Amino acid sequence: MLVVMQSHASEEQVRAVCQRIESLGLKAHPIPGTIRTAIGITGNKGAVDLGVLESMSGVIECIPVSKPYKLVSRDAKEEDSVLRIPTPSGDVIVGGEKVALVAGPCAVESEEQCMAIAERVAKSGVRLFRGGAYKPRTSPYSFQGLGEPGLKILAKVRKQFGFGIITEAIDNESLDLVEEYADVIQIGARNMQNFSLLKRAGRAKKPVLLKRGMSATLDEFLMAAEYVLSEGNYNVMLCERGVRTFADHTRNTLDLSVVPAVKRISHLPILVDPSHGTGKRNKVLPMSRAAVAAGADGVLIEVHHKPEEALSDGPQALLPEAFAEVVRQVDAIAQVVGRTLQPALAAR
Amino acid sequence: MLVVMQSHASEEQVRAVCQRIESLGLKAHPIPGTIRTAIGITGNKGAVDLGVLESMSGVIECIPVSKPYKLVSRDAKEEDSVLRIPTPSGDVIVGGEKVALVAGPCAVESEEQCMAIAERVAKSGVRLFRGGAYKPRTSPYSFQGLGEPGLKILAKVRKQFGFGIITEAIDNESLDLVEEYADVIQIGARNMQNFSLLKRAGRAKKPVLLKRGMSATLDEFLMAAEYVLSEGNYNVMLCERGVRTFADHTRNTLDLSVVPAVKRISHLPILVDPSHGTGKRNKVLPMSRAAVAAGADGVLIEVHHKPEEALSDGPQALLPEAFAEVVRQVDAIAQVVGRTLQPALAAR
Amino acid sequence: MLVVMQSHASEEQVRAVCQRIESLGLKAHPIPGTIRTAIGITGNKGAVDLGVLESMSGVIECIPVSKPYKLVSRDAKEEDSVLRIPTPSGDVIVGGEKVALVAGPCAVESEEQCMAIAERVAKSGVRLFRGGAYKPRTSPYSFQGLGEPGLKILAKVRKQFGFGIITEAIDNESLDLVEEYADVIQIGARNMQNFSLLKRAGRAKKPVLLKRGMSATLDEFLMAAEYVLSEGNYNVMLCERGVRTFADHTRNTLDLSVVPAVKRISHLPILVDPSHGTGKRNKVLPMSRAAVAAGADGVLIEVHHKPEEALSDGPQALLPEAFAEVVRQVDAIAQVVGRTLQPALAAR
Amino acid sequence: MLVVMQSHASEEQVRAVCQRIESLGLKAHPIPGTIRTAIGITGNKGAVDLGVLESMSGVIECIPVSKPYKLVSRDAKEEDSVLRIPTPSGDVIVGGEKVALVAGPCAVESEEQCMAIAERVAKSGVRLFRGGAYKPRTSPYSFQGLGEPGLKILAKVRKQFGFGIITEAIDNESLDLVEEYADVIQIGARNMQNFSLLKRAGRAKKPVLLKRGMSATLDEFLMAAEYVLSEGNYNVMLCERGVRTFADHTRNTLDLSVVPAVKRISHLPILVDPSHGTGKRNKVLPMSRAAVAAGADGVLIEVHHKPEEALSDGPQALLPEAFAEVVRQVDAIAQVVGRTLQPALAAR
Repeated sequence: MLVVMQSHASEEQVRAVCQRIESLGLKAHPIPGTIRTAIGITGNKGAVDLGVLESMSGVIECIPVSKPYKLVSRDAKEEDSVLRIPTPSGDVIVGGEKVALVAGPCAVESEEQCMAIAERVAKSGVRLFRGGAYKPRTSPYSFQGLGEPGLKILAKVRKQFGFGIITEAIDNESLDLVEEYADVIQIGARNMQNFSLLKRAGRAKKPVLLKRGMSATLDEFLMAAEYVLSEGNYNVMLCERGVRTFADHTRNTLDLSVVPAVKRISHLPILVDPSHGTGKRNKVLPMSRAAVAAGADGVLIEVHHKPEEALSDGPQALLPEAFAEVVRQVDAIAQVVGRTLQPALAAR
Repeated sequence: MLVVMQSHASEEQVRAVCQRIESLGLKAHPIPGTIRTAIGITGNKGAVDLGVLESMSGVIECIPVSKPYKLVSRDAKEEDSVLRIPTPSGDVIVGGEKVALVAGPCAVESEEQCMAIAERVAKSGVRLFRGGAYKPRTSPYSFQGLGEPGLKILAKVRKQFGFGIITEAIDNESLDLVEEYADVIQIGARNMQNFSLLKRAGRAKKPVLLKRGMSATLDEFLMAAEYVLSEGNYNVMLCERGVRTFADHTRNTLDLSVVPAVKRISHLPILVDPSHGTGKRNKVLPMSRAAVAAGADGVLIEVHHKPEEALSDGPQALLPEAFAEVVRQVDAIAQVVGRTLQPALAAR
Repeated sequence: MLVVMQSHASEEQVRAVCQRIESLGLKAHPIPGTIRTAIGITGNKGAVDLGVLESMSGVIECIPVSKPYKLVSRDAKEEDSVLRIPTPSGDVIVGGEKVALVAGPCAVESEEQCMAIAERVAKSGVRLFRGGAYKPRTSPYSFQGLGEPGLKILAKVRKQFGFGIITEAIDNESLDLVEEYADVIQIGARNMQNFSLLKRAGRAKKPVLLKRGMSATLDEFLMAAEYVLSEGNYNVMLCERGVRTFADHTRNTLDLSVVPAVKRISHLPILVDPSHGTGKRNKVLPMSRAAVAAGADGVLIEVHHKPEEALSDGPQALLPEAFAEVVRQVDAIAQVVGRTLQPALAAR
Repeated sequence: MLVVMQSHASEEQVRAVCQRIESLGLKAHPIPGTIRTAIGITGNKGAVDLGVLESMSGVIECIPVSKPYKLVSRDAKEEDSVLRIPTPSGDVIVGGEKVALVAGPCAVESEEQCMAIAERVAKSGVRLFRGGAYKPRTSPYSFQGLGEPGLKILAKVRKQFGFGIITEAIDNESLDLVEEYADVIQIGARNMQNFSLLKRAGRAKKPVLLKRGMSATLDEFLMAAEYVLSEGNYNVMLCERGVRTFADHTRNTLDLSVVPAVKRISHLPILVDPSHGTGKRNKVLPMSRAAVAAGADGVLIEVHHKPEEALSDGPQALLPEAFAEVVRQVDAIAQVVGRTLQPALAAR
């Protein structure tokens, strides 16, 4: 933390701030400059909220220097975290050299629909199947998901195709059930700062896929993950899914630069969801390629065999054939950046 | 809904879209233009998701025309909603000609702290006291609130000063308790799209204060309120608390134009929180005046008797004397716009 | 400037950074902390670009501490700048205790139109008339303004009603003419970082009204003004006109908190344009009140006697009667905050 | 254009709007719905500003349907535009199957510096050299570029290495000189809506590189290009360079989805500048790969042989060796998407 004093701050004011810092058990380092004095602070081990210094007279602003996250940071663990997700057909690896493919419908609508889509994406080598049984929808009058019956459908799909299942939990009740039926617990963008849910996910026995909130900074995104890790669940993968900006040519603005930014600071794997991230079917292929080129550890893609009949988010779902093309191209990009699809297409 | 066709769309494509619309039980109105054809849709009573038409060949885009909210809209209720909040000292009115004052610390820290602040703000005529027993914090290592003991402190403050208590619920468990101890259930910005919590709030017997999410559009804000109303709780007041933008001179950008925008569309009262909305103590007074001048039905202001020792958000809390000045100035502004503080200063 | 080192930075790396700083003629102040070392820099008088230190090994980031503006800052001049704008009917004062009213059409369309509008707004006591002869338009096919003939119309209006004229210059050529015909040179939002134009305005003999760019931070806004002042023209008034955000209920998001933020840092007066700032006629009255309540030194309002026929921005222009009501209410708000309209309504 | 009426709009109000539309020479198509009436408008060939209808009584809003651009759109020219830039060493092609490499320093600092950098990037096969002789800088006290002497240095570099030169013009005066010395005229982000400069560029004999404004929507970006084309200069290439958002882990948010979005609507080539687009050296490599993977027609990259001594934007410039690695990886990505670097690495 650095405290910046006003240019006309008196010596007493500087001294008062220093005393206040020392009274908190910290060390103050005044740096007198030509125009103004700044005061460095050291010794803060925990998460002391020093913003209060800003209210002392003579102070212009307090600039935080150290970052607040610990467990998610490379300071805590230098090498990349590589997650192993147990599935009926063996472990699926997320992170490291692997690029994960996650596919499925936005919402679980029926057993027939899920089986049909599952069959198609399995052919493309997908081993992680996504689909929502609980759907957070802007309108209370929109389809809210099938709930537990939806989870049961996913369990059947899991058994039939050997998939690992990723599905969203929207509150503690649904998280209990998701933890029971699925392999990965998804926390959606709207719940990225639902700290109660994050803590519950941190006590879960299953890995967590945490989506970035619509207006979350990188720090907030990592701090949300820190909530999960701080409760003991270290199996967290992040997911960029677009942020909210003024731009209107896509539903959200897919911020791919967050991928190398996360990699620099954190050991956690990060996936990209170009379907929600653009909201436009015709952007999914180029942005999937771009995501893997930027270093993403995987992509989540919405696939629907009849997108015109989808109960939610139809306009961004790919047909199975278009998805197969995405897989081919993503595979080629992955190789260029020294990585392989999980599993590699060659092995299929 | 309006479907816009490509300029080179064939007649068959237009016909196919029309047939699809009619097959959904709706009526299609093709409008052939010089360059392209658009197709109007009428007859949609419910919340049919027509976005799927966007995936049909020859279609450029689907433009929603009708707004999705119902109960919160002036179409459902033309006159302003005026809420009556029962308190130990009689009903407090929010909406209509009254301008409500809500004040208190960001977080309940101790009985001593709450009593000290309560005494001061009571002197300024405040009848609605705010303070968080459950604090959603970006970091898991920051102070998370006292929980139920905090609610018990608020209950004592309530009894002692006759206040109505507004405090935040962050999940279903805390909502149960907040409903029991407090007079108004606050749903915070980070939970504005925690639909599970909104539904629970909709089944509560107490009024709800719903804060705007950091990147919520007006439509999303109103739809979040619609969730509460649709479950039967019509006692909702909205609260603007700043949105997230690129601007860095305040912690959030207080969007006061949402006040007249809400008033135009909805019958619900809307308050403004200039403390969180700016994050800077020195902006609270001018933005409180501006809020009431823009037509807000009240202001929520953080007050702390020792802001330098506050466990959260110290830099934006006002000292009691500064708050008293805010009340005086807000009262004067309220009179200019034909409204009165609740209660009017004269009556105190 | 503060240089933050990585937690594992070696002593040599810290030393190398310090040496580099000293080699630039500055002084390095290493502050060894529990986790990492930070290095304060003092002695930088000019605008040395120290960002380059960020590329040295072991460095995480460089945090600027001192602000880059000088002449616009209260460090250079503590008291508020009060501008005197000579007009045919005497000086109009902007800043200090006065609240300026600026009104007129978006674009000068014809002498008849300008005279009609001028007559109406003059009745409301307006002494500064605005209207564009050069219109920056998103489309090359939209009306681009009348050019010099438009300026001549404004000159007639000036003579007839004794107004001071504010009109926009969009390049050096038009600035030459605007300087000749008008009383205040407006630099529009799209040109806020047209530094060539700012420098030219800085050499002009007339005051400058500088509008905030659509995505300008406060620092950039003040630095744009600094360009004008640094060329010798100290008669600058700022104008907030809305910034670009995700919010879609208004055309722009009017950021009123920038008013007290400017006042805290700079001595320059700041006006608010609620017409462009909201883009909606029905928001102009409440946001005009709010602007003055927030401490603005004036408001710019679009008025058109036949908005349905306006060649640009019709939907945000007020009818003269509605404008008269704005003046009445703004006058009342001004009095509450200890200010008076220029001239006070009473004097009219 | 679609006019949406209020739910309680009277028949006369609907009729009045229709009459107004017809009086403008257009055709009105009322579409009576269950809740409200909408009115489609056809027959508008030019750029009639119909926003004025929004001010008629009974109207809620006017929704534009047709897009305002013409010459830049695929309606005007279906196939991709492929630009040929004459250079001393033969034509360089931008667009089509080629991926262009543009490299050089942010600012021209000295002949020595330019020659040193030019030599290195020439070795990597670069044929388009960039460097600013006129620098738009936020602060008037920052280095503003060498001006014409800088252009002369670029001309020497051009001659020596056979490069095509891309350099920025910031006003009409500098554009005259840039047109004389350079091969491509760059219009920077801050001038994207400097319409006077765009028109001048439209009358130039050299191709134009138009950078997206910091908060420009896709429509505004294309309309800015339309200004250039509408004056007769069809040789325009676009460039995404990051937009301004709340995200703070990069200096700007690089919006790669604009690449496929431009491609869908417009025939113009689009390049990406990951150096300005992220402002961080360590993000340039991954985002260059991602840009080409997303379909960009080229990348602009800042290279400096001594970034620690650069007079501007040091922290984002690559060392020549790092740049060579970018070229290798971008080449590999280009091949995956069926394209070749200009010239292909194999040919070097």
